[in-house]
Amino acid sequence: MLRSCVARLRVLGAPPARRPGPVWRLFSSEKVIRKDYGLPNPSWSKDLRLLFDQFMKKCEDGSWKRLPSYRQNPTQILKDFQTRFVDPSFTKEEQMSKAQQFSRSFEEGLGFEYVMFYNKVEKRTVCLFQAGLHLQGVPGYVHGGAIATIVDITTGMCALAEGIAMTANLNIDYKKPIPLCSVVVVNCQISKTEGRKLFVSCSIQSVDEKTLHTEATALFIKLDPDKRLT
Amino acid sequence: MLRSCVARLRVLGAPPARRPGPVWRLFSSEKVIRKDYGLPNPSWSKDLRLLFDQFMKKCEDGSWKRLPSYRQNPTQILKDFQTRFVDPSFTKEEQMSKAQQFSRSFEEGLGFEYVMFYNKVEKRTVCLFQAGLHLQGVPGYVHGGAIATIVDITTGMCALAEGIAMTANLNIDYKKPIPLCSVVVVNCQISKTEGRKLFVSCSIQSVDEKTLHTEATALFIKLDPDKRLT
Repeated sequence: MLRSCVARLRVLGAPPARRPGPVWRLFSSEKVIRKDYGLPNPSWSKDLRLLFDQFMKKCEDGSWKRLPSYRQNPTQILKDFQTRFVDPSFTKEEQMSKAQQFSRSFEEGLGFEYVMFYNKVEKRTVCLFQAGLHLQGVPGYVHGGAIATIVDITTGMCALAEGIAMTANLNIDYKKPIPLCSVVVVNCQISKTEGRKLFVSCSIQSVDEKTLHTEATALFIKLDPDKRLT
Repeated sequence: MLRSCVARLRVLGAPPARRPGPVWRLFSSEKVIRKDYGLPNPSWSKDLRLLFDQFMKKCEDGSWKRLPSYRQNPTQILKDFQTRFVDPSFTKEEQMSKAQQFSRSFEEGLGFEYVMFYNKVEKRTVCLFQAGLHLQGVPGYVHGGAIATIVDITTGMCALAEGIAMTANLNIDYKKPIPLCSVVVVNCQISKTEGRKLFVSCSIQSVDEKTLHTEATALFIKLDPDKRLT
């Protein structure tokens, strides 16, 4: 399901909403400086730092962009989303202000350490992912749910470039387990669009590209501003 | 991918390993009293408590069993698993002892609050799941990765009853988003077995059964003690 990174729409250059309604004000009205989790921290391994540097170099000519990543949505985005897509009776503002983006709700180094890069021309997203010790499934390896999470996030960033969308299907083949604390590269690309449907393909490989850990497909449906989610 | 709940094999009544090798000693050699996370805590809502009580009643005649749930594997299980399935060069004992089961690595009430029940005759697992505020995807709703995690865990418990197995495929249809802080019921059942392949079906419904949130299928492959994972 679409992660809370609607804040990134501006970065992705999403087309503006066609219907009248609340504007996505994004960061403009936010005065608080929020931590960008898509930047190196002391828990990042040498592998992750090296890959990060390589991709930052690719960003220099503008073909790739690093996507910032936050733990919480800006208040205005939350309000706008609730107004457009959620039944007003559902809104519990106080509670929702305490909610956190699932993949960013861990302490530094223990959960999902990742950074994403987007290529607009190729409609591709690459995620560099280091799995922390709190993502364990079978002893020593990353949990299938944690892998599904990183697949959902990365495929979702491809879909977001086309508009506000939610995950309708994830189909994941777990081919080789991912050792805890290792770094892997997630590659996603839009493979097809059909009306409001967006099909995204995904693979997860080891840094040396010798091991294919996971293959997946995702289907996203663009949201209709005239229909509420619940 | 199979979660770390290999410790539950005894509860599920899994068949003993056919080949000689380290015995799964489970809890017998553990002297530390570990917290069972499959029991009510103050963060549980009225809905979750009511459902828990209903299922505990079903356990009285022995047809259903509540499955205990832990944050970390007993040290002996970890060692046994490493010995049987993992390349010895991969073992980093000190680091691994700090690893935590993904779905239990959150503070009370903020992540996955759940309890599972197993029916051996029907080969069914039911998971009562309350989604905490740190599982957010799109504002106000549970992240698709968190839903995939609870699907993996619950289908995995069905598979575990047949032997040590790992997830090979998850195919998840997200039909209606799950509001944060709500309680849902996850129903899983083995639908087919073919050699080492175990097929499990899964649905997630609202407590009143009026809303079908998610449908999924999972494929698990039983591990071969003669083959290492990496």
